[in-house]
Amino acid sequence: MNKPEYCIEVPLDQAYRLHTHGPTVLISAAYHQERDVMTAAWNMPLDFAPPKLAVVLDKSSYTRTLIEKSGSFVLQVPTIAQKDLVTTAGSTSGKTILNEQHTDKLTAQHIAAFHGQTTDAPLIQNCIAWLECRLIPEPHNQQAYDLFIGEVVAAWADARVFKDGHWDFSQHPELRTLHHVSGGHFFTITELS
Amino acid sequence: MNKPEYCIEVPLDQAYRLHTHGPTVLISAAYHQERDVMTAAWNMPLDFAPPKLAVVLDKSSYTRTLIEKSGSFVLQVPTIAQKDLVTTAGSTSGKTILNEQHTDKLTAQHIAAFHGQTTDAPLIQNCIAWLECRLIPEPHNQQAYDLFIGEVVAAWADARVFKDGHWDFSQHPELRTLHHVSGGHFFTITELS
Repeated sequence: MNKPEYCIEVPLDQAYRLHTHGPTVLISAAYHQERDVMTAAWNMPLDFAPPKLAVVLDKSSYTRTLIEKSGSFVLQVPTIAQKDLVTTAGSTSGKTILNEQHTDKLTAQHIAAFHGQTTDAPLIQNCIAWLECRLIPEPHNQQAYDLFIGEVVAAWADARVFKDGHWDFSQHPELRTLHHVSGGHFFTITELS
Repeated sequence: MNKPEYCIEVPLDQAYRLHTHGPTVLISAAYHQERDVMTAAWNMPLDFAPPKLAVVLDKSSYTRTLIEKSGSFVLQVPTIAQKDLVTTAGSTSGKTILNEQHTDKLTAQHIAAFHGQTTDAPLIQNCIAWLECRLIPEPHNQQAYDLFIGEVVAAWADARVFKDGHWDFSQHPELRTLHHVSGGHFFTITELS
């Protein structure tokens, strides 16, 4: 699948703006013929330029295994229309699906994806931002805290809602971001009145 | 100033729920007679139990200096009514105020605070959650990434909006959280319709 036409490149020094407001994100990775995607509410920007970010990945996650093997991943920002996908991706194991159904989570759950520029990790369709990352190996952080640090090496956003370097959902409220509260319950964002 | 009467203790294993949805927060610290507060959009929970969290603190921040000296800090969640305070606390230096006005940022900017249970760091009034943290020293993370990790040792929330372990702003929309976008522009959160 090709990159959607509304998907524009974001200058690297603006990449932090894509998740400074605290959305729940999807993390994807691939290694050889294997790929996976998972939900991560615990993520944050870490630096402006070169842009870095941090994300918490549980040891049981198959996506984490693929990141450790491949050294790269994608952090992408899903929308309220993808709530079910985000919930399912966060509550099912790619390894279990692989063992039981002999296919990956994306195929089993009909999650469409396209190719990025610097990584084999799948870029999930219908998200509104994609940050391609090179893993900065920090074994102590990864083991002690499940904390992974990436350098953003390419960034993309949906031009319908990321304009002139800023989020603007006024024309497309259906593309607003998800913010996990607890137990599968989400908030979304809105303008301050 | 005493703790507000609506301020209830939150079980430590629920502390992560206070900022999983990605709010911009205030970080405060104190050392001997000095105290400071700063804004931090880049923060996230790091573990459930014992609860830990991570936050990015720029090297120029006086709050960071006080955290390094005292080994403790408070992460608190401000509301939309505190937007001006959050903007000002994020754009002024406590060290500059101390040098020029011979007082601290809280006094200079009329920011009221009360005492916590485990730390001398001030708990900022009119926030809706307060996480008292013990710094887990990680010199490499602090130097290389400005990344600070804390163990949450006491947690409090506003009982009007944190009920039965969950955020519920339906009765108090004026107490909703701030989510920094860029350039002093904020979103707030709302229920998914």
